[in-house]
Amino acid sequence: MIPASRAACEALDARDPLAFARARFAPPPGVTYLDGNSLGVLPRATAARLADTVEREWGRGLIGSWNAAGWIEAPARVGRLIAPLVGADPEGVIAADTTSANLFKLAAAALELRPERGLVLCDAAEFPTDLYILQGLARFVGREVEVRALPQAELGPALDAGEAALLVLSHVNYVRGDVRDMAAWTARAHAAGALALWDLSHSTGCVPVELGASGADFATGCGYKYLNGGPGAPAFLYVAPRWRDRAGSPLSGWMGHAAPFAFEGGYRPGEGMARWLCGTPPVLGLAALEEGVRTFEGVDLAAVAAKSRALSELFLHRVDALAPGAFAMDAPPAAERGGHVVLGHPHAYALVQALIEAGVVGDFRRPDLLRFGFAAPYLTFAEVWDAAALLARVLEDGRWREPRFAVRAAVT
Amino acid sequence: MIPASRAACEALDARDPLAFARARFAPPPGVTYLDGNSLGVLPRATAARLADTVEREWGRGLIGSWNAAGWIEAPARVGRLIAPLVGADPEGVIAADTTSANLFKLAAAALELRPERGLVLCDAAEFPTDLYILQGLARFVGREVEVRALPQAELGPALDAGEAALLVLSHVNYVRGDVRDMAAWTARAHAAGALALWDLSHSTGCVPVELGASGADFATGCGYKYLNGGPGAPAFLYVAPRWRDRAGSPLSGWMGHAAPFAFEGGYRPGEGMARWLCGTPPVLGLAALEEGVRTFEGVDLAAVAAKSRALSELFLHRVDALAPGAFAMDAPPAAERGGHVVLGHPHAYALVQALIEAGVVGDFRRPDLLRFGFAAPYLTFAEVWDAAALLARVLEDGRWREPRFAVRAAVT
Repeated sequence: MIPASRAACEALDARDPLAFARARFAPPPGVTYLDGNSLGVLPRATAARLADTVEREWGRGLIGSWNAAGWIEAPARVGRLIAPLVGADPEGVIAADTTSANLFKLAAAALELRPERGLVLCDAAEFPTDLYILQGLARFVGREVEVRALPQAELGPALDAGEAALLVLSHVNYVRGDVRDMAAWTARAHAAGALALWDLSHSTGCVPVELGASGADFATGCGYKYLNGGPGAPAFLYVAPRWRDRAGSPLSGWMGHAAPFAFEGGYRPGEGMARWLCGTPPVLGLAALEEGVRTFEGVDLAAVAAKSRALSELFLHRVDALAPGAFAMDAPPAAERGGHVVLGHPHAYALVQALIEAGVVGDFRRPDLLRFGFAAPYLTFAEVWDAAALLARVLEDGRWREPRFAVRAAVT
Repeated sequence: MIPASRAACEALDARDPLAFARARFAPPPGVTYLDGNSLGVLPRATAARLADTVEREWGRGLIGSWNAAGWIEAPARVGRLIAPLVGADPEGVIAADTTSANLFKLAAAALELRPERGLVLCDAAEFPTDLYILQGLARFVGREVEVRALPQAELGPALDAGEAALLVLSHVNYVRGDVRDMAAWTARAHAAGALALWDLSHSTGCVPVELGASGADFATGCGYKYLNGGPGAPAFLYVAPRWRDRAGSPLSGWMGHAAPFAFEGGYRPGEGMARWLCGTPPVLGLAALEEGVRTFEGVDLAAVAAKSRALSELFLHRVDALAPGAFAMDAPPAAERGGHVVLGHPHAYALVQALIEAGVVGDFRRPDLLRFGFAAPYLTFAEVWDAAALLARVLEDGRWREPRFAVRAAVT
């Protein structure tokens, strides 16, 4: 039920089952941050952790910290923390590289497992890096590979035709925010002889993910969004147990070797997920990511998804009540929604900028969309109530027409 | 001339032209660190920089820091700081990913530029990740590619046969420490119709590197060794101006796109070195790397190489004087030497461990080598004098025979 007053919002916040998690973050005062889907906020523990990693582990421990401070174990250790958040077995996830690089590695491995097929299907509305990586892979892989990006409605029939080697899908789309049914799409891919690779960037830490139960073949996801791992945090990847000994990375660097420090002349893939490592692990980024993931200790992702959806419902409802008809609203039903929603407006860019200046941070997505994310662990209903009111006020008072809000910065 | 007494060492230190650089580091007290070739020491400026990046830029600036704090520019900005250290034009270097991943990208691009050839030549004594990456690339690339790893003496004749697409060489070998003549090998590769890809991991920040003047086609190098970028720091890469518009990365992620935030459906490679980026830049690692590279401001690499060679000469000379014949010594002549040397001993592993406990940090390399690196910006002649004496004492008093020194840790 949508709270009908600010007092009702405060009452919900007072009995918020995730309030214990909110205490783990230190968002800046005076800001309502509706962009945790792009970069999560700083956890309270992270600054001290980084200082310790830099000053004690690196500064004093130096090279010995690879063992003594557990640096060498960090990719697997962080993977074990992420695994329960994505429904994987404890050894099924490892933290490494970027989402883009992991997509390359996993899609290449999938194509090796389907040598008789050369078609890769993906959503035309997919986050662009997924498309670009698949295009680069296709150009490079030697044999005939076609990347076919289709509107979602055409994906199913194209898959059913039984020609695809691989289906690449985001669990939650980066614009529309709709959650795809991982089990159903994976089953449909398998029935057609294809493998399924999931991009979890916009779902991990926001909605429950069931990699194991859904039968997904491969997955990768982002460390810096809902996982709060910090800007450019390492990503993670997953391979289904049935492929773990059979699939391998084309980026066969020394850290993925069975014995990295034996300095053998020939590559032998490591055990389990270790073979998906490539170069030396980014220790500082992994330390921050570990603290980010630890903000989920004891957090029920079903409760996160429920609160997140309640927050976005409240926001949409209040914006519609205060500025009826001003924004195009086409959000998926709450039950099929990830952590963010988009509102359409011809002056979306300027509105987002004016709103940020007023203290509510959302972001702009081309061509005309305002995107707002509702990271449940650190947001309150009262904040969201106020944010909707502020958006209506910014729209109505016309401040967004000031020329400075129309100037696009390098990153938008 | 090798100093003949500790007093002579102190006199050299007192007039060390690099003393101003030493003040930029805070090595732990009581430790002589002869492993800067593996992980550089912590610069004094880094802890405060990381704290600022975490607490102010991320914690308070949040998503806005991609522009306001210059995060999005960091790969190019750090690249511009590295460029003069490797003899590249100012826009010729970008910081990205790992050395291993960059080798994959560059070797793949080189093969695309030589479609009629399928032979890749490399040194059998190359750092293993280079071999592994090339093997993974060969398996994956589709067309016939052979990776032939040869003893150095056989590389030249094999190259001259005119069948190779690509020569991959380390500028300084990770074990023997010999500097390869970049201009001569590159010219020999070009004369044979091959391209030359250089691994600068053990030379950048230690000896002068002349990528532009030598005509090198491609290069990559490490951020966490002599550049002092911290554990697992981002790596960097270089492409010769003549290839910059023609070569491209197979890992065509969104950050390498000509307009990353336009979210276009098709990949278009970015201008210049930007196209070699893949995923979201690792902001924390780049901040630490930037401070590491800044320790080279005003530092003359010829002076670094000269001092480093004088330090390793002193070390070898003193060890030989104090423990004559105890170690196999086969270092290249000082003028052909990088920043490190190796000593052979059947009990190398235990000796290194006992020496570390005694306060001199070197490392072990299989099968029977003690490796010592001499990072000139932060070491003194007096320290190295004492370190040699300590090695002789540890060897002589037999403490290394204690069983605990024989136990190999996970990382050695």
